[in-house]
Amino acid sequence: MCRFLAYCGEPVLLETLVCTPCHSLIEQSMHAAEAKTETNGDGFGVGWYSERTEPGRYCEIRPAWSDENLQSICSHVRSHLFFAHVRAATGTAVSRANCHPFKAGRFLFMHNGQIGDWTRLRRKVEAMIPDHLYATRTGTTDSEAIFLAALGQGLEEDSVGAFRKVLHAIRDEMAATGVTAPLRFTATWTDGERVWAVRWASDNKPPSLYWRASGDGLIVVSEPVDAQRDQWRPVPSGGGLVARVGGAPESFTFH
Amino acid sequence: MCRFLAYCGEPVLLETLVCTPCHSLIEQSMHAAEAKTETNGDGFGVGWYSERTEPGRYCEIRPAWSDENLQSICSHVRSHLFFAHVRAATGTAVSRANCHPFKAGRFLFMHNGQIGDWTRLRRKVEAMIPDHLYATRTGTTDSEAIFLAALGQGLEEDSVGAFRKVLHAIRDEMAATGVTAPLRFTATWTDGERVWAVRWASDNKPPSLYWRASGDGLIVVSEPVDAQRDQWRPVPSGGGLVARVGGAPESFTFH
Amino acid sequence: MCRFLAYCGEPVLLETLVCTPCHSLIEQSMHAAEAKTETNGDGFGVGWYSERTEPGRYCEIRPAWSDENLQSICSHVRSHLFFAHVRAATGTAVSRANCHPFKAGRFLFMHNGQIGDWTRLRRKVEAMIPDHLYATRTGTTDSEAIFLAALGQGLEEDSVGAFRKVLHAIRDEMAATGVTAPLRFTATWTDGERVWAVRWASDNKPPSLYWRASGDGLIVVSEPVDAQRDQWRPVPSGGGLVARVGGAPESFTFH
Amino acid sequence: MCRFLAYCGEPVLLETLVCTPCHSLIEQSMHAAEAKTETNGDGFGVGWYSERTEPGRYCEIRPAWSDENLQSICSHVRSHLFFAHVRAATGTAVSRANCHPFKAGRFLFMHNGQIGDWTRLRRKVEAMIPDHLYATRTGTTDSEAIFLAALGQGLEEDSVGAFRKVLHAIRDEMAATGVTAPLRFTATWTDGERVWAVRWASDNKPPSLYWRASGDGLIVVSEPVDAQRDQWRPVPSGGGLVARVGGAPESFTFH
Repeated sequence: MCRFLAYCGEPVLLETLVCTPCHSLIEQSMHAAEAKTETNGDGFGVGWYSERTEPGRYCEIRPAWSDENLQSICSHVRSHLFFAHVRAATGTAVSRANCHPFKAGRFLFMHNGQIGDWTRLRRKVEAMIPDHLYATRTGTTDSEAIFLAALGQGLEEDSVGAFRKVLHAIRDEMAATGVTAPLRFTATWTDGERVWAVRWASDNKPPSLYWRASGDGLIVVSEPVDAQRDQWRPVPSGGGLVARVGGAPESFTFH
Repeated sequence: MCRFLAYCGEPVLLETLVCTPCHSLIEQSMHAAEAKTETNGDGFGVGWYSERTEPGRYCEIRPAWSDENLQSICSHVRSHLFFAHVRAATGTAVSRANCHPFKAGRFLFMHNGQIGDWTRLRRKVEAMIPDHLYATRTGTTDSEAIFLAALGQGLEEDSVGAFRKVLHAIRDEMAATGVTAPLRFTATWTDGERVWAVRWASDNKPPSLYWRASGDGLIVVSEPVDAQRDQWRPVPSGGGLVARVGGAPESFTFH
Repeated sequence: MCRFLAYCGEPVLLETLVCTPCHSLIEQSMHAAEAKTETNGDGFGVGWYSERTEPGRYCEIRPAWSDENLQSICSHVRSHLFFAHVRAATGTAVSRANCHPFKAGRFLFMHNGQIGDWTRLRRKVEAMIPDHLYATRTGTTDSEAIFLAALGQGLEEDSVGAFRKVLHAIRDEMAATGVTAPLRFTATWTDGERVWAVRWASDNKPPSLYWRASGDGLIVVSEPVDAQRDQWRPVPSGGGLVARVGGAPESFTFH
Repeated sequence: MCRFLAYCGEPVLLETLVCTPCHSLIEQSMHAAEAKTETNGDGFGVGWYSERTEPGRYCEIRPAWSDENLQSICSHVRSHLFFAHVRAATGTAVSRANCHPFKAGRFLFMHNGQIGDWTRLRRKVEAMIPDHLYATRTGTTDSEAIFLAALGQGLEEDSVGAFRKVLHAIRDEMAATGVTAPLRFTATWTDGERVWAVRWASDNKPPSLYWRASGDGLIVVSEPVDAQRDQWRPVPSGGGLVARVGGAPESFTFH
């Protein structure tokens, strides 16, 4: 289980959401409130869009709470669209290659959840990664494998459909393999213009996901970053959101 | 606030105490029970004696709970005398140089506690470090400074007296500077033959310290590492212990 | 290109070979003499056997030349059989998971060389890893993949034959894929009792490999670690060695 | 010996100078041409000014040549004034706290050179750091100590004079202590508006320093970053430069 945050809207310093709020993502790295694991100290990552099509990224294996570089970058980088993630590893190594957000071309992707019995499924899910992307697989997480598989299913044209196809295929493989542990997928991704977020699980118990408008922008979080609980709306299980800078978020169903 | 463990006795693999028990030091790095901070994820260190006079040491800045190297070293190093420490930083950087145990010649030293208002006192305490040791100061903690100052006060001949002199001098400097925050010193050190442990604070509220016999050996801990709570005896505030391999521990007062 | 060293014989401190000689492996991390790249600063690893069947291991991503932990471990660990490696990455990330020696059960493996055009071959070589080992794949190197594939070809019973089968299969895949870059394999491995070393390449230009007797033991190196050049014998291209503690090394051909 | 680069002028992506040129600073981290040590793999740092008075900073202990974060930050951060440094340690630890550029308030500082026999001088130079800055000393280098001492000698009002006073005082202490090794100081610093660079040594053999105009800006380097050797002018021993964005550099003497 991990904690994440995605923002699109008026350009702001990353620190505005990552460091400053009372229950900021850095605070959540040590004291998450709604996660199964309170401590999310197994590495972190931030990704942001600037003047280029491809995003910048800073990942590290130490806890977010003690990293001076992260504080400095968040105090100096202003962006209209950024992602941030603090990790609680569930069986795979603590390494930069396993830190979210994952990046491929202009896309960023973050995931909270898991493929049940991952060690048994890994080979089958990696087989879903298309040849031309196979060598870009850098880590060992289920999250990165799902992302690369979705890229092979048309993520660039229909990202919601691509993830749906991959999740259904994984669910079918899990059933065929006799895995009874659930497949859970609370995730957010972006192509640099739009941000999507979905909340889905094969057992109907996906990890939490909240959002709120911020001016004409959108913030999506694992759990609220401030004390204004009434401003944050939960995304329902089987639901999703999509927004672009300057446009109102639209909700959709995700099954 | 940190968590530590010291052992002397029959040679055992480090893992016997550092990794395996239900409330081992590695477990305490994520879930300490009696500390002000539950998480001790700001680096760690182990030091051990083998065939040489000077101890070996392995320190790292990441949390103990996720470090494969630590697991491997603890599974393969057997020692009659070793120290282990997981750190919760209180204001100074997370760096190898700030990890306990500190080493000087054949000595190791670990500390749980603090010099109140350390940033105001630092210069004065560093002035207590003798010239010939000054260049060996590698970090910025109060703990290392106390250790180096004690080396200048005769640690090699009368270690208890040396720490007492240094603590009294620091207490006096704190009073002269107008610092009202307390000076707290729960610590353990060794010359490779004997292990000392003391528990003292200027406000009579030192961090916890427990010990128990282990065959003809001694284990000293911040908090018990297993569920046999009745086997562990608290060291009283103002008290200390000294033991050598094969000898019964002796208690003393420390004021 | 990397530099490595393997030792079996009378128990010695690791530092005897890793740190102390004039052209020690640590010295080679900054100034290799016979490698294509003089600097081998992309991480390192040591593995050693003690009282357990499985070896201990310490790997890190920083250069060997500046790591105090490595110095300390090598000064305090005495072993009858150990491996050490300093890495010069050739396209894959600098991460602990990509550091040699690789470990599987009681085996250790180190490799200097490469599978030409690795990014095109990766999927095919990973397909050679048997199901029950697939989840133990932690990194992205060709070296680890060859090792895991050999485990699936009977490494535990006939290690030389297992590597030969894997290398031939890879060579055939390279030909089928149209890869013209060579397959080079200068490697050493151990089951904790015997040490094997081979030197082979599809273009007959494998990286250098030397050995010498050390009492009734064996030292195998990428390049000599001391100035006594006449004591070191090159392993010929297409040749191999096997030795056990206390027995004279035997040579064999490897095609 | 280290390698550094400072830029002020039209806002450019950091990569323009740090990563892209044929002999960029990252290239110099492995293959410096004019330094005593070819390899500068003991950590690195970049500092840059954006919309805030205080600069951002990213430092790490691994070599610059293999750090994906550094590449990503340099590809996405655009600045009118930035510093970059790759380190070759000379006796002090490889740690973030010892990485240049050092930062204090709105100032950045980088140094190539050394105080001869630093371990003997350290106490005396640290005594020059004023009380209110003493607690900000995070590392153990001579470079950081010189910088903090200069802040106590009026760096904010007359930075050239402040460094001169400190260097003279250190030279006098060295003479009084009987140190015959030289004091060498090739350095650059900035307050966020102007960039200064000086080249001085007590034995008249300061490390190299070059500059060139870049539009209406200035680039200062340890050694040229590209093949256009004739565009780079050496700063003479005992010389200095100062420039601000949009203004022509002015030279001065520094004794």
